[in-house]
Amino acid sequence: MVTRVLICNRGEIAVRILRACRDLGLASVVVYSSADRDSLAVQLADQAVQIGPGPVGRSYTNIPAILYAAAKSGADAVHPGCGFLSEDPVFAASCRSVGLTFIGPSAEHIALMGDKVAARSAMRAAGVPVLPGSDGTVDSLAEAASVAAEIGYPLIIKAVAGGGGRGIAVVHGAGELTAAYETTRATARTLFSDDRVYLERYLPAARHIEVQVLADGHGTVLHLGERDCSVQRRHQKLVEESPSPSLDPGLRERLCAAAVAGARDIGYVNAGTFEFLVAPDGEAYFMEMNTRLQVEHPITEVRSGIDIVEWMIRIAAGERLALTQSDVRLAGHAIEARINAEDVDRDWAGSTGRVHGLRMPAGPGVRVDSHLFDGYVVPPFYDSLLAKIIAYGATRDEALRRLDRALAEYRSAGVTTNVPFHRRLLRHPGFRSGDYQLGVVESVLATPPDDRDRQAGRGTATAPAATAGTDQTRKDHRSNEERTESHV
Amino acid sequence: MVTRVLICNRGEIAVRILRACRDLGLASVVVYSSADRDSLAVQLADQAVQIGPGPVGRSYTNIPAILYAAAKSGADAVHPGCGFLSEDPVFAASCRSVGLTFIGPSAEHIALMGDKVAARSAMRAAGVPVLPGSDGTVDSLAEAASVAAEIGYPLIIKAVAGGGGRGIAVVHGAGELTAAYETTRATARTLFSDDRVYLERYLPAARHIEVQVLADGHGTVLHLGERDCSVQRRHQKLVEESPSPSLDPGLRERLCAAAVAGARDIGYVNAGTFEFLVAPDGEAYFMEMNTRLQVEHPITEVRSGIDIVEWMIRIAAGERLALTQSDVRLAGHAIEARINAEDVDRDWAGSTGRVHGLRMPAGPGVRVDSHLFDGYVVPPFYDSLLAKIIAYGATRDEALRRLDRALAEYRSAGVTTNVPFHRRLLRHPGFRSGDYQLGVVESVLATPPDDRDRQAGRGTATAPAATAGTDQTRKDHRSNEERTESHV
Repeated sequence: MVTRVLICNRGEIAVRILRACRDLGLASVVVYSSADRDSLAVQLADQAVQIGPGPVGRSYTNIPAILYAAAKSGADAVHPGCGFLSEDPVFAASCRSVGLTFIGPSAEHIALMGDKVAARSAMRAAGVPVLPGSDGTVDSLAEAASVAAEIGYPLIIKAVAGGGGRGIAVVHGAGELTAAYETTRATARTLFSDDRVYLERYLPAARHIEVQVLADGHGTVLHLGERDCSVQRRHQKLVEESPSPSLDPGLRERLCAAAVAGARDIGYVNAGTFEFLVAPDGEAYFMEMNTRLQVEHPITEVRSGIDIVEWMIRIAAGERLALTQSDVRLAGHAIEARINAEDVDRDWAGSTGRVHGLRMPAGPGVRVDSHLFDGYVVPPFYDSLLAKIIAYGATRDEALRRLDRALAEYRSAGVTTNVPFHRRLLRHPGFRSGDYQLGVVESVLATPPDDRDRQAGRGTATAPAATAGTDQTRKDHRSNEERTESHV
Repeated sequence: MVTRVLICNRGEIAVRILRACRDLGLASVVVYSSADRDSLAVQLADQAVQIGPGPVGRSYTNIPAILYAAAKSGADAVHPGCGFLSEDPVFAASCRSVGLTFIGPSAEHIALMGDKVAARSAMRAAGVPVLPGSDGTVDSLAEAASVAAEIGYPLIIKAVAGGGGRGIAVVHGAGELTAAYETTRATARTLFSDDRVYLERYLPAARHIEVQVLADGHGTVLHLGERDCSVQRRHQKLVEESPSPSLDPGLRERLCAAAVAGARDIGYVNAGTFEFLVAPDGEAYFMEMNTRLQVEHPITEVRSGIDIVEWMIRIAAGERLALTQSDVRLAGHAIEARINAEDVDRDWAGSTGRVHGLRMPAGPGVRVDSHLFDGYVVPPFYDSLLAKIIAYGATRDEALRRLDRALAEYRSAGVTTNVPFHRRLLRHPGFRSGDYQLGVVESVLATPPDDRDRQAGRGTATAPAATAGTDQTRKDHRSNEERTESHV
């Protein structure tokens, strides 16, 4: 039974989980670092417990401090959110060992899918196609060269303990192999204290498609459709949409079925995401499984009407999924833009500062998940995510138009954001067509921006509205061309 | 053809219409009074034109000033929003006479439905049931007494030019008739420059149910389901929900069919709303038709996925409705709470001031239509609506829980709001059961509030979050009782 949920995360995802708790009538406890003492999650939670100073290792990944806070606050369940401890099997096991309900899968499933080599084997066994690559870890340069000769170039070296785009290197030819191999092992050692790596074929022009699954502890496994996450920069997702604009119905069905089969085969319970690469020839390969809530889960929620975070909690509490696959009705089109505090013009350097003149988009077809408020200070310790703008419409075109409207409304003076990039992306013919691949961000950046793009993201307040005179015209948010073509 | 829309309204509805324009790729022009020069609509519009000082008669209902602004700005269409000139046939005719597309029905239809006696006749002719009452206007006290003897007490005296709860009086017995008759005529003369009145039977325990219709100029008339607007104080709606929790499917179908028949019979074009009273015995009667956008339109939008404001513009531009009645799929439950700047404890007196510490609800299943921003000053000239919080869920229960969560998040220091009333309403057994009538607000007010209610709406900022110590517990937003019963 779950009555009081400890949320060991921060930022928008802590607020998101808190809302699910409130909707379920559960009490919420958030833990926070001293850098987050004035955060929205702390303001909104029923209870807030400080667990340490700003740095992540001393607060949000400090397992003893978090368990102590759970005990003190009387929490009976723990939601780890995304990142931090969400895919740490030791944390999941620790929670369970002290009698706390961990809102996520078992420690064993986290461990299995966290070991990317074991995950490949498990999926192969379940009949899910995986990329050609080494059968297991590649423990020497000589073995790397031998495997490389077999699968060919380009290839990718990945840390066994990696995931989410960290601890990987693309190798375009034999001449790069030695350096890439050594560097990736060293990086993996630093990041994960585990320098095992493996090799896979690299698809330079692929799409990143992932399938959301929900599985209860009573044998029901459902998929909630796919998300296209091909808009990435340095393996970090910037925009996600659902459905994928380029997937044909047959392939969509195969991927969703493969995800359900994979989850069922390993006996997975709770929410999870299967990530696939889809090559231009239509071949699809399992890449990895994330055993946690995804940042981009809202686009699935708005299409399905299913509250994924609520179901994570209810499944962890032992409930049965109250629906079957045919009850899952996916309608319309959803797209999410991640608004980050970063300066695209300065090599995407992180930006911090005090937010003022905040203007959050709203209105029909727009949902914003964010922890911002006027006066909020973006701390330097954490990721740069400020807000997720989710636009929804009956069609992709409607969703894109609403996202563009929402981006035009968004303002957070005091901190520089990537909003100008998003507006460029929305005008990019390759993106608009829906027929884009993983390189689309570089393609957008190679197109010169126009003046409109630059203004939107700057951390300055808009000039005050006119007070004198009777007529005031300002620069249009859209080009004349667009306006002319879209009149009714 | 419509390319540039002049919005002659203010507040949240101006922002709402502006968003529809942007979504359609149309340029937007807002007119504003000097009291609204810093408004969100002025900030967001492509162009803004000041038309006069604060008082409504010198700005938002100043037809010459508005038409002059339309000409100067190059607008080719006018959206009147709700209130102000939205049901003024002279304005609609004036727009059309200078070649502007009026985004709404014809002046003739506005005039027909604005004359409540003519409207009753038209609906009777279309086979729509109307309340027993005078066949036409009641021009003398003697005639009033004679009609009253026929239809019985209680009865209601209504101004022919009234509507929206203005210019009406309930008469409980013959002893009250003279005073009520004279007062209503005097009030109508002042408000509408038209002192004609008529009599109708008064239903003390009825429900206010309205049906949204959309009709194009090519013969298609659709309904988008009903809204239950029985939560009213002094004939002003406070909360609306869809579907009505008390309507049986047969009656729902009959009311929707009656609305479509009524619109079709008079050749109505554009969006409109048929208001009915439903008596406890299940009998339903036409009350009036609103020939404009309703404040509560968003609850229909979130259930249907149909953007009503966009369709108003497209229909006015001559487009055909791209869907049939069977394409209209109404799903889930939606509820709207109108957040007004008023002090419930001081007889609902209006409140003005500078908003600070603004915290708008957001997240799954919540849409907020509002013109507020941090630093906004609520002017004294206009209605008290600050925000519409629209909650949506698969079931009524989910929608109510999300609304309660959203109300708990809402904060606008500097101005007193009716949020505490809304939270009391949500806990009121009569409202929760769904089986409530027009008197529900009085019933809520008769129940003593608890401390929780009082805090939420006060115009004071929340105390800053804890900065010292490691444990911080604050007052729960929900009662222990609620929490205990709703764990999973």
